[in-house]
Amino acid sequence: MITKTSSLLGLLVVWALADAVVAYEPVVRSRTPVAIPDLPGYVTLKCDFHIHTVFSDGLVWPTVRVEEAWREGLDAIAITDHIEYLPHQRDLPVNHNRAYEIARPQGDALDIIVIRGSEITRGMPPGHLNAIFLTDSAALDVEDWREAVAEAKRQGAFIFWNHPGWSAQLQADGVVRWYPEHTELLEAGLLHGIEVANGRSVYPEALAWGLEKPLTLLSNSDIHNPLNLDYQVHAGDHRPLTLVFARERSGSGIQEALVARRTVVYASHRLMGEQQYLEPLFAAAVTLRTSEVTLAGNRGVNLQIHNHSDVPFLLERSGALSELSFPAKLTLPPHRTVLAQVRSTATDLSESRALRLPYRVTNLLVGPDRSLETGLDLRVNFLPK
Amino acid sequence: MITKTSSLLGLLVVWALADAVVAYEPVVRSRTPVAIPDLPGYVTLKCDFHIHTVFSDGLVWPTVRVEEAWREGLDAIAITDHIEYLPHQRDLPVNHNRAYEIARPQGDALDIIVIRGSEITRGMPPGHLNAIFLTDSAALDVEDWREAVAEAKRQGAFIFWNHPGWSAQLQADGVVRWYPEHTELLEAGLLHGIEVANGRSVYPEALAWGLEKPLTLLSNSDIHNPLNLDYQVHAGDHRPLTLVFARERSGSGIQEALVARRTVVYASHRLMGEQQYLEPLFAAAVTLRTSEVTLAGNRGVNLQIHNHSDVPFLLERSGALSELSFPAKLTLPPHRTVLAQVRSTATDLSESRALRLPYRVTNLLVGPDRSLETGLDLRVNFLPK
Amino acid sequence: MITKTSSLLGLLVVWALADAVVAYEPVVRSRTPVAIPDLPGYVTLKCDFHIHTVFSDGLVWPTVRVEEAWREGLDAIAITDHIEYLPHQRDLPVNHNRAYEIARPQGDALDIIVIRGSEITRGMPPGHLNAIFLTDSAALDVEDWREAVAEAKRQGAFIFWNHPGWSAQLQADGVVRWYPEHTELLEAGLLHGIEVANGRSVYPEALAWGLEKPLTLLSNSDIHNPLNLDYQVHAGDHRPLTLVFARERSGSGIQEALVARRTVVYASHRLMGEQQYLEPLFAAAVTLRTSEVTLAGNRGVNLQIHNHSDVPFLLERSGALSELSFPAKLTLPPHRTVLAQVRSTATDLSESRALRLPYRVTNLLVGPDRSLETGLDLRVNFLPK
Amino acid sequence: MITKTSSLLGLLVVWALADAVVAYEPVVRSRTPVAIPDLPGYVTLKCDFHIHTVFSDGLVWPTVRVEEAWREGLDAIAITDHIEYLPHQRDLPVNHNRAYEIARPQGDALDIIVIRGSEITRGMPPGHLNAIFLTDSAALDVEDWREAVAEAKRQGAFIFWNHPGWSAQLQADGVVRWYPEHTELLEAGLLHGIEVANGRSVYPEALAWGLEKPLTLLSNSDIHNPLNLDYQVHAGDHRPLTLVFARERSGSGIQEALVARRTVVYASHRLMGEQQYLEPLFAAAVTLRTSEVTLAGNRGVNLQIHNHSDVPFLLERSGALSELSFPAKLTLPPHRTVLAQVRSTATDLSESRALRLPYRVTNLLVGPDRSLETGLDLRVNFLPK
Repeated sequence: MITKTSSLLGLLVVWALADAVVAYEPVVRSRTPVAIPDLPGYVTLKCDFHIHTVFSDGLVWPTVRVEEAWREGLDAIAITDHIEYLPHQRDLPVNHNRAYEIARPQGDALDIIVIRGSEITRGMPPGHLNAIFLTDSAALDVEDWREAVAEAKRQGAFIFWNHPGWSAQLQADGVVRWYPEHTELLEAGLLHGIEVANGRSVYPEALAWGLEKPLTLLSNSDIHNPLNLDYQVHAGDHRPLTLVFARERSGSGIQEALVARRTVVYASHRLMGEQQYLEPLFAAAVTLRTSEVTLAGNRGVNLQIHNHSDVPFLLERSGALSELSFPAKLTLPPHRTVLAQVRSTATDLSESRALRLPYRVTNLLVGPDRSLETGLDLRVNFLPK
Repeated sequence: MITKTSSLLGLLVVWALADAVVAYEPVVRSRTPVAIPDLPGYVTLKCDFHIHTVFSDGLVWPTVRVEEAWREGLDAIAITDHIEYLPHQRDLPVNHNRAYEIARPQGDALDIIVIRGSEITRGMPPGHLNAIFLTDSAALDVEDWREAVAEAKRQGAFIFWNHPGWSAQLQADGVVRWYPEHTELLEAGLLHGIEVANGRSVYPEALAWGLEKPLTLLSNSDIHNPLNLDYQVHAGDHRPLTLVFARERSGSGIQEALVARRTVVYASHRLMGEQQYLEPLFAAAVTLRTSEVTLAGNRGVNLQIHNHSDVPFLLERSGALSELSFPAKLTLPPHRTVLAQVRSTATDLSESRALRLPYRVTNLLVGPDRSLETGLDLRVNFLPK
Repeated sequence: MITKTSSLLGLLVVWALADAVVAYEPVVRSRTPVAIPDLPGYVTLKCDFHIHTVFSDGLVWPTVRVEEAWREGLDAIAITDHIEYLPHQRDLPVNHNRAYEIARPQGDALDIIVIRGSEITRGMPPGHLNAIFLTDSAALDVEDWREAVAEAKRQGAFIFWNHPGWSAQLQADGVVRWYPEHTELLEAGLLHGIEVANGRSVYPEALAWGLEKPLTLLSNSDIHNPLNLDYQVHAGDHRPLTLVFARERSGSGIQEALVARRTVVYASHRLMGEQQYLEPLFAAAVTLRTSEVTLAGNRGVNLQIHNHSDVPFLLERSGALSELSFPAKLTLPPHRTVLAQVRSTATDLSESRALRLPYRVTNLLVGPDRSLETGLDLRVNFLPK
Repeated sequence: MITKTSSLLGLLVVWALADAVVAYEPVVRSRTPVAIPDLPGYVTLKCDFHIHTVFSDGLVWPTVRVEEAWREGLDAIAITDHIEYLPHQRDLPVNHNRAYEIARPQGDALDIIVIRGSEITRGMPPGHLNAIFLTDSAALDVEDWREAVAEAKRQGAFIFWNHPGWSAQLQADGVVRWYPEHTELLEAGLLHGIEVANGRSVYPEALAWGLEKPLTLLSNSDIHNPLNLDYQVHAGDHRPLTLVFARERSGSGIQEALVARRTVVYASHRLMGEQQYLEPLFAAAVTLRTSEVTLAGNRGVNLQIHNHSDVPFLLERSGALSELSFPAKLTLPPHRTVLAQVRSTATDLSESRALRLPYRVTNLLVGPDRSLETGLDLRVNFLPK
């Protein structure tokens, strides 16, 4: 109801610069979807498969992990407390399945897929291994790590190598090493994936191995703190996520996609993975407002390029065109439209041509040293001056 | 160490929380679309029809108005400098058409529709009137205001009454008045619209008159300053906009829609207008993640309600259902999902029913004292306990 | 291109306005002091005396409470898990002293004062009571609440009534009641304070009782979640705090001040307490850039008023001056300077006068219905026109 | 007044993440001081000596420049429209003094020092030169640039070379050159300063020349747009500023300090200048919460380091101590406290020592390739284990 003519009516203002007082109850509890497009035939699920709770060395009750995931727009999480490292044991008697049992009903209530997992926590080699889609975590609590892995396999688990370049497990030379034990696991069908990103760290060696062996590429938070103590989510910061291209939004949909290696790493506003996934993802995220332009003589025209996603795209021109000049660099911020001026360099032309402006996207990696090569497609009607 | 002269050395640090240093050149020049959905058959254009420049008492060069509009996601602006009030006249010789002439090419370059207009600036009555879609503003510079309005009409202008409740033009009693002169204009077909919102002010009387007479409802900034000095756009603040439901994105599309009164006022995060536009707009902006739920006994289930738009929606329950309890209040922040718990109160039911949860949206006004009455549609499968 | 395994590769992008990519490792771990001035003779300590952990029904490990307090600029916290309500008991065997024992060393490392406390959790009356500065929480685990309170007293505790208006403990009429049991406790010296604010709630009845009986006024979070899930600290939101005016920054300094009732409630950007504390606090927080102005004839002059604190101040003129006109309302945002135009209304004066511009500060409350009455002091040199 | 017990009372919330509606009128008009400390004996004035308006090729009315400066916490601005480049001439007849005349009264009203200036705008050499503290800009409108400079000198102007590395005035080889004409000016006492920073660009050559010749180091915005279109001030971004260490806050105080070369460049969150100013500035901005610590055996202790200023400080350890280990890198965000763990490496010591932890501050430059070398002073009481 509006009853006065004063400008006090209905103001909305923001305190970001400390300027007003609010009269409605705040909605601090809400979910912000992650805007990364689906691919043709697949739904893009946002997943974190490496998470701790008070039941090993984490610092929150298991239900908190579901609430955080819901608010941050995730689809699925795996609770993966350590089997062997239990510093709260004096206060919290050992129960390897308990964190999952507590988290799961909260997942059902918020429509977050909660996956049972455990972290097999050993010295290097083989280092730390996550097993997810377990049926009984307690059975992994055995002396011999080969036994633990075999048991995970018996339960049908998906098994991956965590943070292969973790500094605490490197030798004095600092080299990130693939050990014979990893070959042994791989050849026995006991190693299916590898973390390319873990927390704030990214391991280029892991990206290379994942693409070569091949292994499923993963990106997880390994979060111990309340998430907001480590990530400034409110400011556009994000935890590392594994993007899973699934046939359906379900636990089994995720498992099938992981086995089929349909994932992309999303860490620190960069995407890493195979060309076959990164290229359509970029194409689905970026559109030209008008994909047909008319260039008369050498007058410039502004393309308006919109990025529908949460991921910034940093473009560098990767080739030239004889007919057209176009920007050497473009930054496409999330959910923004930017201008790119194009200009005919062939002012005697009088025809219509389909052109691709060649760009590499420097924060989309198809290998440790290779950016995605792609382009912006445009039809240009050339008119003489 | 500084080693190059490039502007890349000019680092931009975004100290939102003071936590990092930036290495890429900033993209301060970008467009943020206004997320308000189209209606069936119409494109929703975001327009500001009341804007000043240095050519009357505004404080920016005309091209700035186009740049601001582009960045803020507008589709169209009218430049409407005063005919009679020209405080910069000593420095800037009078030229009533010049601001439009300067702004228009910039509009063409950025795909912003720029409309030629003028503000006929007289004492009350009739107060200030905007005429837009003019062909020659200079011809309005005449002694008699009736002459000026008649000339605007001859040019095919759309004419509206600005800020009818502006305190500087009220009588001592503070009442916002409709004068005989306004009746005279209305009856002669010389008054087509009325500003319900102007800058930070909203006039409930204008909303009532607009709905009754009827007149096209308008909402404009009347901006004089650089826009960012008056509106904290970066923090979710927005200038008042007229939402125009047009058959096409063009000047003539806008003019046809204005004449046909297909508009909604968008001011201070509130929408005001006719039920026929507000209801489908709300329906297009808000979706349930799952519109079918199963309620077993009296167990509660969370609906997940998503708001796709930039407009917050403040809902209050406006009725009861015999079968179901549901929240008394809901706040739907822009681009967020919130939870609404529903619970069966008819625990003996064993059937499927289509239900509408009745809500009024308190920041969507269909009259000075009436909120939009609408609802959330849901299919509920009741199972006995 | 990624070339190293260091966590520096984990870029943090602050997309506050989505404009740049960051190259330095983020500093998410930092402390933001609470800017509220000291009073003459006292240091103003920012305290939260009502906090839960996983050891009752809270959702974080005790060390998290210290980390949160450090980052948010607090000086002291009391860990006050429930004695009687222990929903995690199945997983975490009862140990009433354990949360304090775990939190305390982290407090020592971060220079946060950690106080041992417990919440005696009973039906109304007497409802929930916090006892802080205990020496053994376990001794409070007895059947009779009078026994528990007596034991707390024996340990030298400071005891206060929590959330007296908590809806779950009100009778059907919704009235917030003072029960005979509270009189009994008060008269026996077993009740020393009362929560005026608890979480997002404020109880005017508690403010009235606190001022009358009198009792020490308290304001606490009663936090169960990770704090960032309930408070948007990054955006200027804050947990309720008890401001303690202590002779020294220490546990015993706090205890002495609590007993002496030297506190102010700071909740939802409002301050509540006695005039003797609010007035000097306002005076210490707000300064005029120039406190002497010259007014020639009726020319206006801008005062520049600066607010050095985190608390906004909302001022309304509470009287008139014969010599001077000055603004009816002033909003003083935190850490900002605003303008206030003053103008002589006595244009024939030719002398210098010390004047106080009378204002009430509507968000500083000295009673449930009374704002702080204060003023801005100014020397004015009047010159005839 | 508070009248209910509901949690709706007195909430403050923030729309940064779109969560609430505000009830108070916004204070968009306010000043945010620049927090950079004074030096002993001097007040640190924040100045921008290169600014355009519509009277040359700028896009705002002169008064806007004062309003922007006031809001951003500046002390002084010079309006420096081009003498020779006047693209608005068709609409705005030439009047070189007019922008200053319009801006000055607004400066007086807001207590911003407005300085009369002009930009002598010629090809390279000598390129563009600013003359400030002029008495009549019109007299500089002469054919010969030597004449214009001589006239500026006659008026007592302070003259500096603008953007010496501006790409549009470089030769094909891209080298930033000092020309014989600059030597000529310098030797004739007609060149007093040089812009090290202009807008987003920084010129290391100019820093070197400024230190060698010597010339006063300057940093200015050269702003043409409304400032908020180029700088995201709300997000911590800032225009380049010249920090002037003046004996008093006045125009003549600034002029004396400029002639005496008491300035520091503040651009893109970096400071550049002489050690004699940067060292005390850093020392005044950064404090240890406790500057005396006790180290027992090899137990670590956290130092708490607070940065009182708006400038981040990026520290790298520049030496070792035999007694102590301390962090290799420290980032000190503005207005935050961070932790630095120190640990005794001399566990047999049993005495008290004054130590300086040696650090270089990588964003404080005392030469194109040299960071400020400084340290944190600490008294350490060593106790054997």
